Amino acid sequence: MTSPHATPGHRLERDAFGAVEIPADRYWGGQTQRALEVFAIGDERLPASLIHATGLQKLAAVRANRRLGQIAPDIADAIAQAAAEMREGRFDAHFPLPVWQTGSGTQTNMNANEVIANRANELLGHGLGTRAPVHPNDHVNRSQSSNDSFPTVMQMVTALELRDRLMPALETLQGALAAKAVAFAEVVKIGRTHLMDAVPMTVGQAFDAFARQIEAGRARFTGTMPRLLALPQGGTAIGTGLNTPPGFDAAFCDEAARLAGLPFRPAESKFEGMGAHDVLVEVSGHLNVLAVSLLKIANDLRWLGSGPRCGLGELIIPDDGLSSSIMPGKRNPTIAEAVVQTAFQVIGCHAAVTAAGASGTFELNVAKPVLIYNLLKAIRLTSDAARLLATRFVAGIEVDRARLAANVDSALLLATALNPVLGYDRVAEITRVAMRDGVTPRQAAVSLGVIGEAEYDALVDAAAMATPGKAPGTS
Amino acid sequence: MTSPHATPGHRLERDAFGAVEIPADRYWGGQTQRALEVFAIGDERLPASLIHATGLQKLAAVRANRRLGQIAPDIADAIAQAAAEMREGRFDAHFPLPVWQTGSGTQTNMNANEVIANRANELLGHGLGTRAPVHPNDHVNRSQSSNDSFPTVMQMVTALELRDRLMPALETLQGALAAKAVAFAEVVKIGRTHLMDAVPMTVGQAFDAFARQIEAGRARFTGTMPRLLALPQGGTAIGTGLNTPPGFDAAFCDEAARLAGLPFRPAESKFEGMGAHDVLVEVSGHLNVLAVSLLKIANDLRWLGSGPRCGLGELIIPDDGLSSSIMPGKRNPTIAEAVVQTAFQVIGCHAAVTAAGASGTFELNVAKPVLIYNLLKAIRLTSDAARLLATRFVAGIEVDRARLAANVDSALLLATALNPVLGYDRVAEITRVAMRDGVTPRQAAVSLGVIGEAEYDALVDAAAMATPGKAPGTS
Amino acid sequence: MTSPHATPGHRLERDAFGAVEIPADRYWGGQTQRALEVFAIGDERLPASLIHATGLQKLAAVRANRRLGQIAPDIADAIAQAAAEMREGRFDAHFPLPVWQTGSGTQTNMNANEVIANRANELLGHGLGTRAPVHPNDHVNRSQSSNDSFPTVMQMVTALELRDRLMPALETLQGALAAKAVAFAEVVKIGRTHLMDAVPMTVGQAFDAFARQIEAGRARFTGTMPRLLALPQGGTAIGTGLNTPPGFDAAFCDEAARLAGLPFRPAESKFEGMGAHDVLVEVSGHLNVLAVSLLKIANDLRWLGSGPRCGLGELIIPDDGLSSSIMPGKRNPTIAEAVVQTAFQVIGCHAAVTAAGASGTFELNVAKPVLIYNLLKAIRLTSDAARLLATRFVAGIEVDRARLAANVDSALLLATALNPVLGYDRVAEITRVAMRDGVTPRQAAVSLGVIGEAEYDALVDAAAMATPGKAPGTS
Amino acid sequence: MTSPHATPGHRLERDAFGAVEIPADRYWGGQTQRALEVFAIGDERLPASLIHATGLQKLAAVRANRRLGQIAPDIADAIAQAAAEMREGRFDAHFPLPVWQTGSGTQTNMNANEVIANRANELLGHGLGTRAPVHPNDHVNRSQSSNDSFPTVMQMVTALELRDRLMPALETLQGALAAKAVAFAEVVKIGRTHLMDAVPMTVGQAFDAFARQIEAGRARFTGTMPRLLALPQGGTAIGTGLNTPPGFDAAFCDEAARLAGLPFRPAESKFEGMGAHDVLVEVSGHLNVLAVSLLKIANDLRWLGSGPRCGLGELIIPDDGLSSSIMPGKRNPTIAEAVVQTAFQVIGCHAAVTAAGASGTFELNVAKPVLIYNLLKAIRLTSDAARLLATRFVAGIEVDRARLAANVDSALLLATALNPVLGYDRVAEITRVAMRDGVTPRQAAVSLGVIGEAEYDALVDAAAMATPGKAPGTS
Repeated sequence: MTSPHATPGHRLERDAFGAVEIPADRYWGGQTQRALEVFAIGDERLPASLIHATGLQKLAAVRANRRLGQIAPDIADAIAQAAAEMREGRFDAHFPLPVWQTGSGTQTNMNANEVIANRANELLGHGLGTRAPVHPNDHVNRSQSSNDSFPTVMQMVTALELRDRLMPALETLQGALAAKAVAFAEVVKIGRTHLMDAVPMTVGQAFDAFARQIEAGRARFTGTMPRLLALPQGGTAIGTGLNTPPGFDAAFCDEAARLAGLPFRPAESKFEGMGAHDVLVEVSGHLNVLAVSLLKIANDLRWLGSGPRCGLGELIIPDDGLSSSIMPGKRNPTIAEAVVQTAFQVIGCHAAVTAAGASGTFELNVAKPVLIYNLLKAIRLTSDAARLLATRFVAGIEVDRARLAANVDSALLLATALNPVLGYDRVAEITRVAMRDGVTPRQAAVSLGVIGEAEYDALVDAAAMATPGKAPGTS
Repeated sequence: MTSPHATPGHRLERDAFGAVEIPADRYWGGQTQRALEVFAIGDERLPASLIHATGLQKLAAVRANRRLGQIAPDIADAIAQAAAEMREGRFDAHFPLPVWQTGSGTQTNMNANEVIANRANELLGHGLGTRAPVHPNDHVNRSQSSNDSFPTVMQMVTALELRDRLMPALETLQGALAAKAVAFAEVVKIGRTHLMDAVPMTVGQAFDAFARQIEAGRARFTGTMPRLLALPQGGTAIGTGLNTPPGFDAAFCDEAARLAGLPFRPAESKFEGMGAHDVLVEVSGHLNVLAVSLLKIANDLRWLGSGPRCGLGELIIPDDGLSSSIMPGKRNPTIAEAVVQTAFQVIGCHAAVTAAGASGTFELNVAKPVLIYNLLKAIRLTSDAARLLATRFVAGIEVDRARLAANVDSALLLATALNPVLGYDRVAEITRVAMRDGVTPRQAAVSLGVIGEAEYDALVDAAAMATPGKAPGTS
Repeated sequence: MTSPHATPGHRLERDAFGAVEIPADRYWGGQTQRALEVFAIGDERLPASLIHATGLQKLAAVRANRRLGQIAPDIADAIAQAAAEMREGRFDAHFPLPVWQTGSGTQTNMNANEVIANRANELLGHGLGTRAPVHPNDHVNRSQSSNDSFPTVMQMVTALELRDRLMPALETLQGALAAKAVAFAEVVKIGRTHLMDAVPMTVGQAFDAFARQIEAGRARFTGTMPRLLALPQGGTAIGTGLNTPPGFDAAFCDEAARLAGLPFRPAESKFEGMGAHDVLVEVSGHLNVLAVSLLKIANDLRWLGSGPRCGLGELIIPDDGLSSSIMPGKRNPTIAEAVVQTAFQVIGCHAAVTAAGASGTFELNVAKPVLIYNLLKAIRLTSDAARLLATRFVAGIEVDRARLAANVDSALLLATALNPVLGYDRVAEITRVAMRDGVTPRQAAVSLGVIGEAEYDALVDAAAMATPGKAPGTS
Repeated sequence: MTSPHATPGHRLERDAFGAVEIPADRYWGGQTQRALEVFAIGDERLPASLIHATGLQKLAAVRANRRLGQIAPDIADAIAQAAAEMREGRFDAHFPLPVWQTGSGTQTNMNANEVIANRANELLGHGLGTRAPVHPNDHVNRSQSSNDSFPTVMQMVTALELRDRLMPALETLQGALAAKAVAFAEVVKIGRTHLMDAVPMTVGQAFDAFARQIEAGRARFTGTMPRLLALPQGGTAIGTGLNTPPGFDAAFCDEAARLAGLPFRPAESKFEGMGAHDVLVEVSGHLNVLAVSLLKIANDLRWLGSGPRCGLGELIIPDDGLSSSIMPGKRNPTIAEAVVQTAFQVIGCHAAVTAAGASGTFELNVAKPVLIYNLLKAIRLTSDAARLLATRFVAGIEVDRARLAANVDSALLLATALNPVLGYDRVAEITRVAMRDGVTPRQAAVSLGVIGEAEYDALVDAAAMATPGKAPGTS
């Protein structure tokens, strides 16, 4: 297989542009090898999920081509098997190109064509680099262009990653938060506004609000899905579908839908899906909201767990086995910090996606690789962060009931419950004295002689204040 | 009405914090006046739409309070009339506070309470500053807190601005683009990818893609609306609803829905709507996508209209009456430039909204004014830009048919249509010669003697290439 | 002056584009009036500082023109007086155009030409709208184009605003922070990492770090100034300087430098200053760093002042006279919240400036108005916020010595100072017992019998731990 | 070395937290192994440059410790050799932790301590995992904390990457642009403003402006360097320097300066360098400006090279050997597209760095890993992109002289040079006729009989218009 004139361990491949040496055991071909030498930028790679989705796209395409009589069955079968293997991850190591390539993703599409053609030829008993009987362009890329295939893959991999990675992780996190909302439903704490002590609530109410943020975070993607599933495949070079057999777009979507279990359909305008990627900017916006939600949740949790002595100390955060080297009780909220950092990254990814999404010109947006790289990174990080937060942080959170109760008791605003009985002026005097003397409002009220202990306790009921709707007679 | 001891033209008002001088003809009160003196930052004001929505919120609140027996009918009537007037814009000049105030929007809420109380007292025959019989806190703010009222107003004004301002403007733009898609449905042009000449398409197809971007831009808000209409009103200080009569939240939403014609409903967790504003970050994300869409559209249009001699020159952009001072034909795409700039602003607003949205802590997000200021600015600018682009730019665009045809004729890739007849090698020779000699591919083909003029014209039909699906026998 | 055929209160002006009605008392002319009718977008205006800097630019230009014999002395004198009046703010109300105009700022430049021409003609005894003897283009705009004048104004106003507004405000803030660093130099507090209790430090050290952040914030602009002062004036339409007399650029910079007291000089490449605005993106980047600094400072201060009972409560924040309506001691950190919000806005402005700055094409960046609008807004808000933070927040901060001391005493990590004497294992036992029993490490140590009270106090000296460099024998 | 009870291929290590299995051939220890199991987020790693800089930091630290008598010479020598090997890249494969760890970078610092301790023990004849005679904490981390070491490394690696990677790449790009400025100094082209044809200039002037953008891009870092070189090392846990021998900070900087050839010095406030990272946000801002510059340059170049027939076609972009599969002359600007995409990424990195930089609280910013990850990515990508743009794009650019000349000849604004001779009205007539009839202004002028060919050519000299300063008699 290796040309006699090639460097040892390499084969020499020739195509319309001349000859090129390729490592003998690599399934890629000349286009990939040349691109590898040209694009010496960074070390970022498109993730494996995109390579797998490209396998899916090539598999759906060859099945559509076969249905429409575009490719002979034996060739089609070999391509289909190769594409299926690629989809399963068998060729991940054969996609060496950086993100920083041509803006249409052409080199990655050609990489796929070359790997599949080589593998298909191998299956048919031929060597790597023969370019026959299966040709990367004429057969594997049949009825396709990079210009419609790569954006189709971008949408497909996004839909798959949302369904298979993000949604389950968000469900896990929502579940963990909701479980704590139930567990702490009766635990009263002081509420805080402007960071300042306010009136009572329950710990469960705080967790319930977090859970609802994540619930809404999941719902956002539902509305987007119809737009995401409308694929530009079949547009070929610019959107018109030149050189594509009639019905190819529908046949492709039908095959892809069956393979992936998602109701793909042809885009109303393939121009729109190739020249713009608004729907992916939309998905990025939803991830940006999730970053905002996770920042709120992770920050609140680590603040409530701050201390143990000189912070708020109301929550006891789980031990991560890493950070208590000197001091029992010194537990740093490392998981929360990792989550916060992923949220900052997602915000950065969103800025990159927005800039890339805005840069389309005429019939092609040529910032495709950077856009999908950032979008998939944001999905991956959000998913992993949500799951880690749920399983290693939220699930292990306990409350410090003594601290919570002491805070509630000392909180000055508690006395506002006396307003109806004592009137504003006397309540103001109570809080003034409590503040001045460093005592609880209860102590101040009693010491002022305006109310007895028993009456105070009957009137100032933090639990009732926390859930006024549940108080007897109020609903 | 003016105190004898006040500076001429002012009245002296006293409250729990002491006395303060207020211009005699202003309806605001002491809290507003003090805040005006404290917050000496910038000159940005919350927009009139927010003031009007606050009038609506106060109107719905007083009606709910009256239904629930919280306020005497005569007081309620006066408050209702004052709030209705405020909603209509009669008191816009009485809201002098900057955006840069306390993060809960408390000062703006108090400003509304004071203006309405003063106006209600005036309606009842009393002077400004009397604080009786209608009291700003006890009556106007009854059953409310700034902490639940201001975020309720934020969501209400956003929903109203989307419905009344943005949606009609987007419809106008979509319509103008769709009209051009129809008008130019048969006009063939060369498509371009990587900025380079590609294969033919129609001008109508380009406009159709633009129209679909805007159509999707409208659809995004539909999915968001249920989340946006769930209001935190009734949560009062921290979300528990302390000091609110049972049923206030539902009564408020019922009244607000009737007044505004939008199906508001109480939020599942009022904590979530006060401590976080994820749904507003979501709306901002949709505006960010629209910015991306408008950049694509405005940029494509001004590039296609570039020239008139040394650019692409395929579209003739309308004369704005401003920019052709010296030269007939020199028309600068000023409208497109204005639109592009609003899109950059919207991207900036989105960054501010994201930062603000991520900053909530515990029971209150205290970046409310900056968040809603940027969100409403983004809605306003997108709306105005969309309408201007539609009416003064897109509607007047014409095509330069001679230029379009010349470009199509000279485009080298046109010869690819000969592939099936002449084979790849001879077609490559045609394009090579055409490039070398600076002639059309048709001239090159004929001069090479590989095909006759009539046969060439029969095979190379740009219009058919532009709409392959419509070609005879292909569908 | 008013044409007999105009609407009452208006004058009818004619120019090359026809006739237009203008309010009779307005100094602007036909170009401005037409632009006002075209650009119906938003209500944002370019700030007065930019109008004044345009007056300065026109004044420097007419003086340069006079020096080079381009304009007759009497005409030049009238223009100079009008421009000087404009620089002083006399005509602010005569600049009605929105930010959202053509991207070169042409309409604002023409507005200035028209206002100055009308005022100059008035000074020479002629009416508004006569366009003679002083002509807006031929005389006021002499040797200039909008394309070089507007970016020159952008750089001039930025330099002036930095010098006159931002720098003094930052000095004020740095001074206030440094004063607290001195005042609290001996006040010991517990340090916190990961939000968790750590080892002791002084309150002064925290304020010193804040002061140094602001000091560095000032220094950044110093390095930028040489780039900012290199002006593109003299480049006219595209940078070549067509239709400009030799030496105009140098004469202009000389005059402008004398008028403004800043060493302006001609840019090495006027193309660079017209087609790109990198130096303004650089300035925006410095403001972005200041936003980051202010967020750190304002957040730390409000957290340290959180409480009064259930937060950290180590700092006592000044009363703003606004927020203690019910409860003595309830002081919301409203100033800090306002500052935080301006920082979010500056981050948003930076995103807009970046997008605008990246959009230049060929010989002209046509996102000039949006760029300078956001940059000036960021300077203004940062300046106002810094000053307010200094004078109404930092200056009034006090410490709660009892709370600080109690926190230090209870902090478990204090016992690490015993390591050299007792060894790791026994110290770990002390902290374990202190944590378990809810006592101070001192109490735990004594109760365990491993050390006496006097010896403990001699070894565990928080003040010495806070400033190890000052301990006897260590330096 | 491997415990008999460990899984084959692993060793069992015990420390204060229990036992953990580690792959036998890995130099990392228990802390790293546990962190690896906890932080299951994403696949991003801190780059090798940071690992190498950590080697440098550990080397400087051990030399300072030795100078100050903190570590016995034989132990110090072994640590120094191990750290030097790490600096050279020998242990890159032994740093498996993700970016998404605790926000202080503690796990990466511990990873370095463990790898160096194991290697030092190996050098001293002991096995991996013995933790003696060289202990990761007691010896390798001596006089240090993660909290001061990691930010010190962040600043050191940034300074090194700027000096060794970015600056040379920018010099290369500036040189390539300047070379083209010289090469094309006499080539006249039409200038364009608002994308529309304007007056003539030279191709060299455009490249000169690009070169100056890069020159300014380099200069920005010079001003920042003093701030970047002030290191927080010696602050230990919170900035006070607890447990550090006097003079450690100065000794460290002295050693580091000698090793790295950069004048490091102790920071005035170590608190500032640990709790905030403003100087890194500043560096990120400069990279953001470079992104803006590269977008302008890459976009202008690909637009000027657009075509070949239906675009501007004035520049001939070099063949990348990738994109001309079908058509001679079809060369896509793939390098420019890759560069544009890196610029979008850098803008995204800047947003992440800004968010991370703003998140510091009290004595520690705990978003360090995400901050430095994005900053180093931005430096790497900008460097690689600049070099690639220089060597594979700019260096190969040629001009299409025929196209340039035809554009200049046909440009209508050329006729403005006739104004002084023919007067405005007749010139306007010339351009009107030229536009109407589709002829050059020269043809129109001659056909109108207002001027002869020779006289026209004498008056309308595009080259003279392009460089008015050079015209005879004008300077």
